[in-house]
Amino acid sequence: MKKMNDIEVIINNKRYTLRGYESEEYLQKVASYINNKHAEFKKQDFYRMLDAETRNVLLEINIADDYFKIKNQVKEIENENDSKSNEIFDLKHELISVHSKLETATRDLETYKTELNEAQKTIIRLETELLEKKR
Amino acid sequence: MKKMNDIEVIINNKRYTLRGYESEEYLQKVASYINNKHAEFKKQDFYRMLDAETRNVLLEINIADDYFKIKNQVKEIENENDSKSNEIFDLKHELISVHSKLETATRDLETYKTELNEAQKTIIRLETELLEKKR
Repeated sequence: MKKMNDIEVIINNKRYTLRGYESEEYLQKVASYINNKHAEFKKQDFYRMLDAETRNVLLEINIADDYFKIKNQVKEIENENDSKSNEIFDLKHELISVHSKLETATRDLETYKTELNEAQKTIIRLETELLEKKR
Repeated sequence: MKKMNDIEVIINNKRYTLRGYESEEYLQKVASYINNKHAEFKKQDFYRMLDAETRNVLLEINIADDYFKIKNQVKEIENENDSKSNEIFDLKHELISVHSKLETATRDLETYKTELNEAQKTIIRLETELLEKKR
């Protein structure tokens, strides 16, 4: 079982202690992502004129937007993944079929080789017989 | 160009008008996602004891956590996608190679068939000659 950690993060210039199973590194990454959002918003005039609650709601919407955008991306990549899986299935199927045709052709080739070999022997035998008859 | 919309959403029981390019449907989905987070948090005793700012920070962290979790998922699916692409490349390569072997085998088969046919004709001719000599 993972061990619980108390981790200090600074978000929007205030210190918070978070208790959880996440690593220090992960929570600092999350904190820094949120702080960047605050910094981005603070650059904009309209944001400075808003009350604290509205600011927070805007920030929440902004983060949730990142979440939904990437969620849609997941769907797209999963669809791509599915179509690749189908392509792999079809290619494997085709490969099996061509392999099987190659096997048949190789076997036929061996049969013809043997028959040709036999035929050539017969020709030599017949030619020898003919030569003997001519003598 | 997309048209700007003014869209009303209710988040945590307050009405906000959002101006932007996103569709009404999308923003309502985002609002409902945030409201579900509020509702989940409000069920928990510790949350009710926190001041508004800390509540907001917790909510932001929670949404950002969803974002990072799914972002990691994207990486995983993209890796899967890459390995599928490699598999497709290898399968196509193998398919080309087997197709080319099959082509060679089919051509050889034709050559042997013709040779065998010629040999059989020669045998018949020789046998006829022999029969005539025996008469």
